[in-house]
Amino acid sequence: MLIFIIGSGNVATHLAQGFAVAQHKIAGVCSSTIEHARQLAQKFDTTAYTDIKTIPANADFYIISISDDNIKNVVAEMPDVNGIVAHTAGSIDVGVLQRFDNYGVIYPMQSFSKNREINLAEVPFFVEGNNRATTEKLLQLASTLSDEVRELSSAERKMLHLSAVFSSNFVNEMFAEAEIILKQCNLPFDLLKPLIYETVAKALEMKPMQAQTGPARRNDVGVMQMQQNLLANENLRKLYSFASQRIVERYK
Amino acid sequence: MLIFIIGSGNVATHLAQGFAVAQHKIAGVCSSTIEHARQLAQKFDTTAYTDIKTIPANADFYIISISDDNIKNVVAEMPDVNGIVAHTAGSIDVGVLQRFDNYGVIYPMQSFSKNREINLAEVPFFVEGNNRATTEKLLQLASTLSDEVRELSSAERKMLHLSAVFSSNFVNEMFAEAEIILKQCNLPFDLLKPLIYETVAKALEMKPMQAQTGPARRNDVGVMQMQQNLLANENLRKLYSFASQRIVERYK
Repeated sequence: MLIFIIGSGNVATHLAQGFAVAQHKIAGVCSSTIEHARQLAQKFDTTAYTDIKTIPANADFYIISISDDNIKNVVAEMPDVNGIVAHTAGSIDVGVLQRFDNYGVIYPMQSFSKNREINLAEVPFFVEGNNRATTEKLLQLASTLSDEVRELSSAERKMLHLSAVFSSNFVNEMFAEAEIILKQCNLPFDLLKPLIYETVAKALEMKPMQAQTGPARRNDVGVMQMQQNLLANENLRKLYSFASQRIVERYK
Repeated sequence: MLIFIIGSGNVATHLAQGFAVAQHKIAGVCSSTIEHARQLAQKFDTTAYTDIKTIPANADFYIISISDDNIKNVVAEMPDVNGIVAHTAGSIDVGVLQRFDNYGVIYPMQSFSKNREINLAEVPFFVEGNNRATTEKLLQLASTLSDEVRELSSAERKMLHLSAVFSSNFVNEMFAEAEIILKQCNLPFDLLKPLIYETVAKALEMKPMQAQTGPARRNDVGVMQMQQNLLANENLRKLYSFASQRIVERYK
């Protein structure tokens, strides 16, 4: 397949690499920052574009992998194209692309960083199309990248993305708070490694609701009060309080 | 060493097993619930006690592994003993044991569940004693269980425990919220496995503050507002809001 990439961020980079490895041809890369477009285009020996109005109309797929806020603008400025136009965002409705004849979504649920290799074959992809033929073509395309491909509606994808925010972004935020707390006593973050590995293994094997331990699980009011008092930042105290309340409520 | 175990919960069970494996002798087990005391005592062919006033005075160590709220009462009712008395709690000051001559803390930082095996050798233990000789003896005892033993003051141990609450209990709480959200669309929690593994690997390799991604990291106000609106529970919306605010504040 001939695939045109719109965007040059973490997701665009990983998907373009995946498409190339799967023997698709990258038709070109368009990014508002010309250096980023060039860097990515260079990898696939293809053309870099910075003006979305000038991109070629002959690709089989146009993959829009840009920040959610910018999708509307880019879609409005894109030329009419023959291929399928699909975005990769978890929380954006497929309808944002409705000015095209054939459009959809191909959402990879993973936390991508540019300099970390990801085995795309294990990444779950969630696909949606505006008609059956488009959905099938997007499912087929996703299957050349991953062994875990499912069809999912925009409404369900929004919930899925929300679950990803909790289990990845907010989990990492909890790690960041732990890192900050440990720095205050000159202790290395790595001390938490065995605890973190066991926490994850338990959650995946027993399911999180069965795996919970700690002061909030025991409704140990004294320890919770004392721990909140150790936190100087008002928002952090509230974060502690609401996380604890959710746990206390669940088991009382 | 001759070790008396006070308590029969998750930590007491794992430590007693560890002591037995390390060729120490379990002098007895005391628990307010006699069946629990018996169950644990049976494993080590030792005596079960339910009245703390009647326990023998000749053990080398008394390990108090009970809920934080109960430590004070048990300490008040214990007979005078010759050995070292140590509790295993992360957030309780060593001073709670000051009626004894030789006392301290031996805190294993791990999330213990009764039916899950834990390799104690990898669990970091944090030790404190009321005098040098006691500290040394507790360090030695902990070293028979684990390769990761450090001395730590009560004040530092409280911070350490707080970091454990964030990186284990609250991380698991985020997993639980994700599980609940996915259930609403009949999707299995296991879908999140690759995302969770990558999130943890990134946090440990890049450190959490460098590893953050997602709507709050990008300060994507539209997605954050939409996601909050998907949450029906008031406390959960606040949890979302304060977790996001902490991330937004850190990178702005």
